[in-house]
Amino acid sequence: MTSTSPSTVLVFLDPAFPQGRVADASVPQLMATDLGATRGDGVFESLLVLDGKLRKLPAHLARLAGSAAALDLAISAEDTWRAAIGTAVDEYLETHPGVDEFVVKLLVTRGVEGAESPTEWVQASLAPALGKKQRVEGIDVVLLDRGYDSDLAERAPWLLLGAKTLSYAVNMAALRHAHSLGADDVIFTSADGRVLEGPTSTVLLAHRDVNDDGSVTKRLVTPQLDAGILPGTSQGALFAAAKEAGWELGYGPLEPEDLFDADAVWLISSIRLIAPVKHLDGKTIGSDPAVAAELTEELNRLFAGIE
Amino acid sequence: MTSTSPSTVLVFLDPAFPQGRVADASVPQLMATDLGATRGDGVFESLLVLDGKLRKLPAHLARLAGSAAALDLAISAEDTWRAAIGTAVDEYLETHPGVDEFVVKLLVTRGVEGAESPTEWVQASLAPALGKKQRVEGIDVVLLDRGYDSDLAERAPWLLLGAKTLSYAVNMAALRHAHSLGADDVIFTSADGRVLEGPTSTVLLAHRDVNDDGSVTKRLVTPQLDAGILPGTSQGALFAAAKEAGWELGYGPLEPEDLFDADAVWLISSIRLIAPVKHLDGKTIGSDPAVAAELTEELNRLFAGIE
Repeated sequence: MTSTSPSTVLVFLDPAFPQGRVADASVPQLMATDLGATRGDGVFESLLVLDGKLRKLPAHLARLAGSAAALDLAISAEDTWRAAIGTAVDEYLETHPGVDEFVVKLLVTRGVEGAESPTEWVQASLAPALGKKQRVEGIDVVLLDRGYDSDLAERAPWLLLGAKTLSYAVNMAALRHAHSLGADDVIFTSADGRVLEGPTSTVLLAHRDVNDDGSVTKRLVTPQLDAGILPGTSQGALFAAAKEAGWELGYGPLEPEDLFDADAVWLISSIRLIAPVKHLDGKTIGSDPAVAAELTEELNRLFAGIE
Repeated sequence: MTSTSPSTVLVFLDPAFPQGRVADASVPQLMATDLGATRGDGVFESLLVLDGKLRKLPAHLARLAGSAAALDLAISAEDTWRAAIGTAVDEYLETHPGVDEFVVKLLVTRGVEGAESPTEWVQASLAPALGKKQRVEGIDVVLLDRGYDSDLAERAPWLLLGAKTLSYAVNMAALRHAHSLGADDVIFTSADGRVLEGPTSTVLLAHRDVNDDGSVTKRLVTPQLDAGILPGTSQGALFAAAKEAGWELGYGPLEPEDLFDADAVWLISSIRLIAPVKHLDGKTIGSDPAVAAELTEELNRLFAGIE
């Protein structure tokens, strides 16, 4: 039905197959009554495989479990997921010799309507080419209102604000809206004017200051988590690496003005990795392109070192 | 995989089958890479068939088209939908002799990732038994914050507030939250304290006043549409019928206090029809049960007459 499906690897979690059940991705594998398809009722994760190695697997498994808990979804044990993921990665490497970068998605739905067991599967497929381009060339971004106050998440758990659900229609619509404005991506703001996150990424900014004694202080900042944003596995890993390397770390609240004042701003995510923001609402980010490039280069180096 | 699937009828919209392609609902029919399943990226409608007749088909087709437009989804022409719906209804009636009430769902997803054509299908299945019970016995409801201001919809079209998307994870989570509190259903309120809608229904309230001359005035009220709620096909049809029958009509803004002050409150929807709200946040609705019962009876009669 599509040119990408034949090269996609699917492995379903299935009690009858402890290593996961490999399924043909070129034919239908989901029931039409699956609540993932009819209600967007489920959770997911996207991981990158680089040089044959899965990046940040424990962090992604932990976030999957957290999202599932927020939705009252009883998902399989971590070992079962690891086995199926291993099968998918092996199968993909075997059927795609020479491919050193691909995407592994973990998906859970509430299952078929009327049944009481989730549908769980692992998908391995090509990394989108656009991602690599945006890492290198940078992106133009628009600010869009997400409509929520930044203090909402805690008092309204039914809104699932910190969970990575399959209900991504708004995220996709926001990206289409950005494209219609000639931009590449979105940074959501809260109703009370705080910087939140991208539809599929975490926001980072940095300052590079030269101190009186000539030494350099680098500071990496991200919005505070309790604003109802998704805890970024990439942000978490990169912060740990930056701290090791002597950077100062900071956590919001951030306002758009903070983005315009920064020496560099990025959207980071597991698949596209670090995408430098060139323009925000049409305005250039960072007063000195050389400083921004240096900071991006250093973060790329730190990020490449994580597992 | 489940006991309900074998009795479900599926008809896919397919250019090779002008009347729709009947598919076996007991086996997988959706690609695992369909963006409906992986992103909740699509729209839907639920219709009731009563006595072999589809209720409010034009209104549902119009709302499906509106939702699709909000998501930039190019769906098939209305005639194509009507043909597939007709096939599904005929097939269901033929395979379920004696069943006089069932549900027809229209579903559209953005299609398989990488392909550029939506997946569209019609599903016919049994009406949930719980719905009939709630119509008769009434429901207990809790107010839950939806997090949005009531003036958000117009300025933030990317939030898809008036579209009936497949991204229903929050609606489902809100219902689970209500159940965990011992309630049956939810009425969402906006961040600025306005009454919005139920996760799968429209809110109605009524007043019955005896005038000085002894005549009776009945007034039916629903929240204003521009608060970012879904335009209810049932509310629209019922309002038209009530007007014909001499009721006065009103449109919000409504606050929770208005619900507590009403003679009766209902959640109405296409499948469950008119469900009287008995308690809201634990407080009894309506000061006179006889008046509430009379109003419910009259609305049921009016609603039964619509097509």
